[in-house]
Amino acid sequence: MDVDIGNALASVASPGVSRESLERLDEQVADAHERIEAGMADGEHGYEALNLPDRTDPDEIRRTVEPVADAEALVTVGIGGSALGAATITEALAAESDTEAISLDNVDPAWVSNHLERLPLENTAVNVVSRSGTTAETLANFLVVREAFEDAGVDWTERTIVTTGESGPLRDLSERHDLPSLSVPDGVPGRFSALSAVGMVAAAVCGHDLEALLSGAAAEAETLSGSLFDCPAYAYGATSYALDARGARMNAMVPYAESLETYSEWFAQLWAESLGKDDLGQTPLRALGATDQHSQLQLYRAGPRDKLVTFVTSEEGTDRSIPETDVEDLAYLGDATLGELLDAEFEATEASLAAAGRPNVRLELERVDEYELGGLLYGMEAACVLAGELYGVNTFEQPAVEWAKKATRGLLGGGEFEEADAVAEKSELRVER
Amino acid sequence: MDVDIGNALASVASPGVSRESLERLDEQVADAHERIEAGMADGEHGYEALNLPDRTDPDEIRRTVEPVADAEALVTVGIGGSALGAATITEALAAESDTEAISLDNVDPAWVSNHLERLPLENTAVNVVSRSGTTAETLANFLVVREAFEDAGVDWTERTIVTTGESGPLRDLSERHDLPSLSVPDGVPGRFSALSAVGMVAAAVCGHDLEALLSGAAAEAETLSGSLFDCPAYAYGATSYALDARGARMNAMVPYAESLETYSEWFAQLWAESLGKDDLGQTPLRALGATDQHSQLQLYRAGPRDKLVTFVTSEEGTDRSIPETDVEDLAYLGDATLGELLDAEFEATEASLAAAGRPNVRLELERVDEYELGGLLYGMEAACVLAGELYGVNTFEQPAVEWAKKATRGLLGGGEFEEADAVAEKSELRVER
Repeated sequence: MDVDIGNALASVASPGVSRESLERLDEQVADAHERIEAGMADGEHGYEALNLPDRTDPDEIRRTVEPVADAEALVTVGIGGSALGAATITEALAAESDTEAISLDNVDPAWVSNHLERLPLENTAVNVVSRSGTTAETLANFLVVREAFEDAGVDWTERTIVTTGESGPLRDLSERHDLPSLSVPDGVPGRFSALSAVGMVAAAVCGHDLEALLSGAAAEAETLSGSLFDCPAYAYGATSYALDARGARMNAMVPYAESLETYSEWFAQLWAESLGKDDLGQTPLRALGATDQHSQLQLYRAGPRDKLVTFVTSEEGTDRSIPETDVEDLAYLGDATLGELLDAEFEATEASLAAAGRPNVRLELERVDEYELGGLLYGMEAACVLAGELYGVNTFEQPAVEWAKKATRGLLGGGEFEEADAVAEKSELRVER
Repeated sequence: MDVDIGNALASVASPGVSRESLERLDEQVADAHERIEAGMADGEHGYEALNLPDRTDPDEIRRTVEPVADAEALVTVGIGGSALGAATITEALAAESDTEAISLDNVDPAWVSNHLERLPLENTAVNVVSRSGTTAETLANFLVVREAFEDAGVDWTERTIVTTGESGPLRDLSERHDLPSLSVPDGVPGRFSALSAVGMVAAAVCGHDLEALLSGAAAEAETLSGSLFDCPAYAYGATSYALDARGARMNAMVPYAESLETYSEWFAQLWAESLGKDDLGQTPLRALGATDQHSQLQLYRAGPRDKLVTFVTSEEGTDRSIPETDVEDLAYLGDATLGELLDAEFEATEASLAAAGRPNVRLELERVDEYELGGLLYGMEAACVLAGELYGVNTFEQPAVEWAKKATRGLLGGGEFEEADAVAEKSELRVER
C-alpha cells in the first residue's frame, strides 16, 4: 500500500494540515510508535494484533478446514468483528473462488430463512465464530442453522468449523461433538482479527493463498517506524487524526472497486469501535466509486467542510472494452474501456474535491489480490492503532455496547437487568398518519 | 408511516430540541408548507415530484413492460437516482418476486463481466434509465450489455425497456429500434423519481402491486399540512433540521430489516444531494440493525455528540423460532424467535442511546409491503423538501457534480474541458512501502 496525502495539505484544502504541522506531529508519531513497539514486544492486549503476520499458522488453518475444503458454499455465522474480516477477504477475492461465501451476521428472520432455503446444505460449510461463545445473534443463528441441517438430513457435525475462545459454551459444544476448531488468539480484539483464524478460515475454505495474505501484511509491518514520512500506515493514521482535529469529523472510505465494498464496512467498524469513545472519534462513511459520484459527491464537494475523503485505487485488473456506437455524442466512450472510464472518473472526482479545497487521501494498491489485501488490512489496523495513541483513547475496548447487550438479555428473560427496565420508560412524542 | 420524536427532545438528549423550540419552528413549517403547496399546484420543478402519486399511470407502465413480464432476471442499467429507487423497491419486496433484480450502477469491469456471465440472458430483461440519455456510466454499460446479448445470440431489442427524457441519444435509439419506452416526467429530479416510471418499471417487471405503492404514497401526501405535529413527514424533516442546527451534523439511517438496506442508500442520496450545498447539509450515515450494534453503536453512544440516529421498524413480518438448546447460558434464546430477538435488540439499542442522551427518532411501518414502502419513500421525500425549505437551499439541483463529469469527458477525449487539465496538476506527498 502506498499513500498519497498531497491533497490533504493546507496548501490545497481547508481543513488541511500544513507540512510544518505534520513535522511537529511526527514527534508525537515517534513517541506513539515506541509505545506500539513495546506493546507488540510484550504481547499486550490489542497491540498483539499487529503480531499476527508472524503468529498465524496457515498450515493449522488449512488442516482444520480440510473436511469441508470442497464446499460449494460457506456460511460464516458471526457478527461484527467475527464476520467482517472473513467477509472482506472472501468478497474482495470472490472472482478467484468457486465457493460462494456469505455471512449470517443479522437475525432478520425472513433473510435468514431465505438464505437457508437457497443454500445447497449437503455441500455447504458452516464457520461459526464467537470469542465468548455467548454472542446472542451468533448463537441464535447457529441453533437455527443446525436445525436446518438436521431437517435436510445432513449431519451438521460433518459440515461445521468452530472458531472460539479457550472456554465457553461454543468451546464446550465443539468438544462434545468433536468438531474441527480453532482458537481466537488472546489479545486480539474482533475488529483486529481478520488475519487470524477468525478471518482466515473463510479464506482457506474458499481456496485463497493464506501465505500471501500474511506476507502482504508482514511487508506492511516492516514499514512501521518512528516517522509518518517513512510508513504509509502511519501517514494515513496521522493525517486522519490531524484532519479530524482541524474539523474533518468524518472520514469517507471510497474504494473504486466493487470487490472492496465490504472492506469499507470492515474499515467502518475498525475506525468507529476503536476511536469512538470519550466523546472523541472520527465517524467513518461508506461510499463506492464511481456509483456514489451520483449520490454523495454533491455533499462532499459543496456541503460542510467536515470531511476527509479516502480513495482506494487499484492499478491493475480485469478490463472490458466499451463497444463503438453510431451515436455521435457518445463516440468518445467507444474509444475507451470500462476500466479507463472508471480510472478517469476517479481522477476527475479526486481533482474535483481538490479544486473545491476539500481534503482527500489516496490509498494505492497494485491490484486486488491476497498480498495487496493483506497489506491494506494490516495497514489500516496500524493506522488505527496510531490514531488511537494520538487521540489518547483506549483503542481496544468497546464498553458502550454492553448496555444494549444487557437490556436485550433482560427483555428476553435471560436474567434481571436494570437496563431492561429502562426500555419501558421511553419518552414519546408521536405523530401518526 | 408513524414517527416518534420523543427521544429527540431536549428533556432526553443533547443535542435535543425542546418542545417550545418545536412550537416556534412550527411557524416556519407552516410557511414552508405554503411554498410547497404552491409549488405542487403550479407543477414547479422539484415540487412536481410530490404530485407523482396522482400523476403516475400504473396501466401505462404495465403495458410497456408486457413484452418482458415473464423475465427470470431484470437488469436496471442506471446510476444514482436512475437506479436507487428501482433497487429500493425490488430489494425491499424481493421475497415476493420470482424475478431476480440487479442494478448495473457502476462501471467496474470485473463486476460487470461477472454479472453478464452469470445471467440467463435469453430470459433477462434490461431496463435502461437516463433522463439526458448521455450519462457516461449508463450508456457505456448499456453498450456492453447490448454486445453481450448479441454475442449470446439474443435479440436485445426484444428484451429492452427504455426510460428517458423527451429527447436525447437514448430517445433517438429507442425510436430507431422501436423499443418499448417510458418518459422520465418533467420537473422530477432523479432522486425524487422512485414513484415515477423510473422506479416503477422494475417494480412492474417483478410483479409488484403498483397501485398499492402509489396509494401508500397518496395516504402520506394527505397528511401534508401546516403543522409538524399533524404530519409524520414534516415531523421528521423539521426534527432532523432542528437537530442539525443544534450539532447533529450526521443522520444515521438504521433500518431493523435486511430488506431495507438499499432503502438506506436511497435515503443517503436523497438527503446528501438535496441538502448538501452552500456549506450546509446533514450527512447521511448508512447502518443496519442489529448487525451494526457490533460495529457502529460504540461510536454512536460514546463518540462525539454530533449524530441523530433514525430507526426504521416494522411491526409484522415472517418469523422463525430459535431451537432449544441444552446449553444453560443460552437457554433464554430457545424461548424466543429470531423476530423477538431482533425486536429486543432494537428496543435495547434505542434505549441505550436515550440513556446516554443521544438523540434518536423512530419511523414505524406496519410491515414491509408495497403500501407501507410507498408511504415511506413519499414521506422521506416530503421530509427532505421541507428540510430544504428550512435550510433555504435549492433542494432540487446538484451543481457540484458537474465539474467531475466535465473532467471525465475531457480525460477520455470527449472534448476540450479545462477541468481535465486541472487533473494533471495534482499536489503530491507520497509515502511508499
